Amino acid sequence: MSDDILRQLALTLEQRKSADSGKSYVAALYAGGDDSILKKIGEEATEVILAAKGSDSENADAAHLVREMADLWFHSLVLLAHKGLHPDDVLQELETRFGQSGLTEKAARKKEG
Amino acid sequence: MSDDILRQLALTLEQRKSADSGKSYVAALYAGGDDSILKKIGEEATEVILAAKGSDSENADAAHLVREMADLWFHSLVLLAHKGLHPDDVLQELETRFGQSGLTEKAARKKEG
Amino acid sequence: MSDDILRQLALTLEQRKSADSGKSYVAALYAGGDDSILKKIGEEATEVILAAKGSDSENADAAHLVREMADLWFHSLVLLAHKGLHPDDVLQELETRFGQSGLTEKAARKKEG
Amino acid sequence: MSDDILRQLALTLEQRKSADSGKSYVAALYAGGDDSILKKIGEEATEVILAAKGSDSENADAAHLVREMADLWFHSLVLLAHKGLHPDDVLQELETRFGQSGLTEKAARKKEG
Repeated sequence: MSDDILRQLALTLEQRKSADSGKSYVAALYAGGDDSILKKIGEEATEVILAAKGSDSENADAAHLVREMADLWFHSLVLLAHKGLHPDDVLQELETRFGQSGLTEKAARKKEG
Repeated sequence: MSDDILRQLALTLEQRKSADSGKSYVAALYAGGDDSILKKIGEEATEVILAAKGSDSENADAAHLVREMADLWFHSLVLLAHKGLHPDDVLQELETRFGQSGLTEKAARKKEG
Repeated sequence: MSDDILRQLALTLEQRKSADSGKSYVAALYAGGDDSILKKIGEEATEVILAAKGSDSENADAAHLVREMADLWFHSLVLLAHKGLHPDDVLQELETRFGQSGLTEKAARKKEG
Repeated sequence: MSDDILRQLALTLEQRKSADSGKSYVAALYAGGDDSILKKIGEEATEVILAAKGSDSENADAAHLVREMADLWFHSLVLLAHKGLHPDDVLQELETRFGQSGLTEKAARKKEG
């Protein structure tokens, strides 16, 4: 396995924008515009929170949290594709923040914001 | 750049759990427990939604969305680390779903759920 | 019209808990437990946010926001009923905070929290 | 006590829009525009969810949920005021939906939407 899965998924999502994939789940999200995708972001974030509250030790619960997080990341990729952005944009932002100095910069940035 | 940034970040976040990093932003999140991290998931999802609603064409807005998405993914990684999970767990889930058959499986799964 | 609508609704929601209303929307929420109700809270909050972002001046948009806010308040009442609480508990908390001194107390409370 | 607290609060919030209340918590929310208020809606909805997940039986937890719900409703009122709306608009929408036929109409409406 490779974490290039994010890029592979982004490529597939990009292709779906122009395709004749009129009945796919993703095509329906694109067709619904910003709001249909953003509703899913809100829903999946809520489901991550609920899964995490019930997932302290049991395997089944950990698997539940993993599935909900996958849903959240998946819809994040759909949103990026819809906006003409790429996961590399986000990964590069993370690398810029944390690349050299670890996580120190984060706290600094937060205090400014 | 490599999207191994997720793994590098996960490694750093893992190290922070045991470290003497008592005053860092991440240490404060860990110390606050589930709820302090989950509040951030909710907040950052909201900020992604707000950034997306204002980010249709302008560069400044696209950059804003990228920053908020980076915040959401970052706190996702903190949550995974706090729960003893790894981004590979999520990436593997995504690969299992979408690896062979593209995005078809997603719609199928959703109808079951 | 009276804003006792909140109390009337709460009474109806209370009655539904014991009734033979097995197929109603509310009965399904109760049966789904905390998580099914809390998912709706997350969803409706997201929909309020999206409606507000598109509702600055047009009547249609204002009506949209009102409908989404009604959804959010309705599911708030379902949650309160499910937890054995009453809207008066929340209204009393608001009155305690704001009754005498207006909104000054709010800022004070927030700084503590 | 009366649930006219919502109307009293709405009146106070309306007055704050024109007042010289430059340093109040509410004035800061208004000055921040839609996004500052909507961030609070997202945050408080998340806090309601987290409070509910920890509030099954204990009194302390019930009080926690009541406080977070009061926060959510309060910021709902701020949003309505900011948009030139009134809690009566929302209460009237709830009465129209549920007034005669109880909660049946809700399920019907949801299936359409």
